[in-house]
Amino acid sequence: MLEDKNKERTSLEKLGEFGLIDHLTQNFTLNHSSTLKGVGDDAAVLDFKNKKTVLSTDLLVEGVHFDLSYMPLKHLGYKSVMVNLSDIYAMNAKATQITVSLAVSNRFPLEALEELYAGIHLACKTYNVDMIGGDTTSSKTGMLISVTAIGEAEEDKITYRSGAKENDLLVVSGDLGGAYMGLQVLEREKEVFKVNPNNQPDLEPYSYIVERQLKPEARKDIVELLEKLEVIPTSMIDISDGLSSEILHLCKSSKVGCALYENKIPLDPTVISTCEEFKMDGTMIALSGGEDYELLFTIDQADFPKIKGNPNLTVIGHMTDTSGGANLVTRAETLIPLKAQGWNSFQEE
Amino acid sequence: MLEDKNKERTSLEKLGEFGLIDHLTQNFTLNHSSTLKGVGDDAAVLDFKNKKTVLSTDLLVEGVHFDLSYMPLKHLGYKSVMVNLSDIYAMNAKATQITVSLAVSNRFPLEALEELYAGIHLACKTYNVDMIGGDTTSSKTGMLISVTAIGEAEEDKITYRSGAKENDLLVVSGDLGGAYMGLQVLEREKEVFKVNPNNQPDLEPYSYIVERQLKPEARKDIVELLEKLEVIPTSMIDISDGLSSEILHLCKSSKVGCALYENKIPLDPTVISTCEEFKMDGTMIALSGGEDYELLFTIDQADFPKIKGNPNLTVIGHMTDTSGGANLVTRAETLIPLKAQGWNSFQEE
Repeated sequence: MLEDKNKERTSLEKLGEFGLIDHLTQNFTLNHSSTLKGVGDDAAVLDFKNKKTVLSTDLLVEGVHFDLSYMPLKHLGYKSVMVNLSDIYAMNAKATQITVSLAVSNRFPLEALEELYAGIHLACKTYNVDMIGGDTTSSKTGMLISVTAIGEAEEDKITYRSGAKENDLLVVSGDLGGAYMGLQVLEREKEVFKVNPNNQPDLEPYSYIVERQLKPEARKDIVELLEKLEVIPTSMIDISDGLSSEILHLCKSSKVGCALYENKIPLDPTVISTCEEFKMDGTMIALSGGEDYELLFTIDQADFPKIKGNPNLTVIGHMTDTSGGANLVTRAETLIPLKAQGWNSFQEE
Repeated sequence: MLEDKNKERTSLEKLGEFGLIDHLTQNFTLNHSSTLKGVGDDAAVLDFKNKKTVLSTDLLVEGVHFDLSYMPLKHLGYKSVMVNLSDIYAMNAKATQITVSLAVSNRFPLEALEELYAGIHLACKTYNVDMIGGDTTSSKTGMLISVTAIGEAEEDKITYRSGAKENDLLVVSGDLGGAYMGLQVLEREKEVFKVNPNNQPDLEPYSYIVERQLKPEARKDIVELLEKLEVIPTSMIDISDGLSSEILHLCKSSKVGCALYENKIPLDPTVISTCEEFKMDGTMIALSGGEDYELLFTIDQADFPKIKGNPNLTVIGHMTDTSGGANLVTRAETLIPLKAQGWNSFQEE
């Protein structure tokens, strides 16, 4: 899914604001019966009938959340949608609609925005969500994308962060740390490129982790899997800021403690080998890395047989009473209190 | 409603992302039974039962949509909400919830964001909407606010842009051009201030139009009035970009033409006198000025007795068949085709 290096440049000024929205959204179709009216009026109109509506929103800022020097625009469009759908799935809900608002400076030609929207379109198609609105405007510098995702769920299936109970099992989907290590590789190649622009990087050995960073997938499949397995998690959150930070969110909201077992944390072999290469600790990366967009949830112990042996799910610990706090149980069986070392966008660089 | 010139400065870095959201949203209460869960989980949860959901989103960018040199932050927060609620009212719906996402650079201290949220809070309280979520992040430069407004309506009351019919009357609420002329006054004072920073501007004669620019009100009262009068407009839009551009939207969506009577366009005396002072034409300002956030709608002629004589509503024209196009009928009774001279944020400065 590489960016189309189209050399044509159409200035945004020529199209104007209304022309731009019409142009960029012309290929989007509406597929949900809950979408009564999408783009083209003052507001979208939705009908969720007897289901509950869930809604989440995220801002992605150039230079803070993404770097266009290695992030192809099509991937960026795709990832912007994933970040939001991930929040909907973390409620154990089904994503149905999104809105996309975009602020861009005049330095971007129309063709660049078409690439961005191609990624958004692919995400909508793959995940079966309707694009129902948004806003397009200029910015003085850089690009900013604001996505709002809307979903639906039966009330008794909605999973909050607050339902975990003592002795519940802590489960994670997929593996962790890949997105962060992919970013390390991309940052390194960017530095090499600055020194020697003719250098052709060989990213092949890192393809899994680079894809985890550039084209993450939200875990719609896990929500579907849980439904099939007839498991309703007692609490759930998506991993956007790192495992440690997300566990602390669940513990705080649910008023429980946690024992996380270091030797259970799922790491892909590429993450392990790249950590060795960068002299980084895999556990630390999983705890603090962020952007993996896996689902972290707790289940009643009685549900363990239903998920046991499933290759998509790993039990990594269990919830405890609140007095002991949230701890990592290391391979040496020592306890280390978990800290929210997740990403803080307000830190000075 | 002047900005509190608090001299304390707390850096955003100290609070971090989660602390910031908790801090800024602590005073917001939830008042709608349709809000099952607001801020504090991966997504908000809403329940609209048998009503339809309407949803709209807008981006406001520093240097494009607002200038902090004369826009107090509290007013900016208030206005950001108004811009969105206006879209919901333009559907003849009731606004119930908002989400607010914010990108700010480190140059803003916490106290500045508190001012901004004080304005958002006042708007939520005054218009009875629940704040249910959002995102807060840093930006490399300047401030950007993304607001999504959610509302509800009975299906048969929802008013689209597309329902206007030949011979329907064209009606506008309030008066036009004030926000644009207020901006002219503020821009002039800014230039004076640059030359002589000790100059104390006397804005008193312009207070109505300056307030139209800095603290616009969305016309919730008009939606309530229409309900009381038992009038369901055949089409409706809010005036954000200027009367001309909005009439063209209604005509295009409804596939009709329009005759707009210059001598019917409602202008406040302050707008007329300030236009004279700036040697500008009041009609042109109403047609192209923008940001008035009044409602523009069409009604069946049979409903005319219901609105006749209401001081909040002015009949300014009628819809025609599509062949004649959309025209301004001047005081001299000549026809001038309307053009979308509304604001284009992509124009080079």
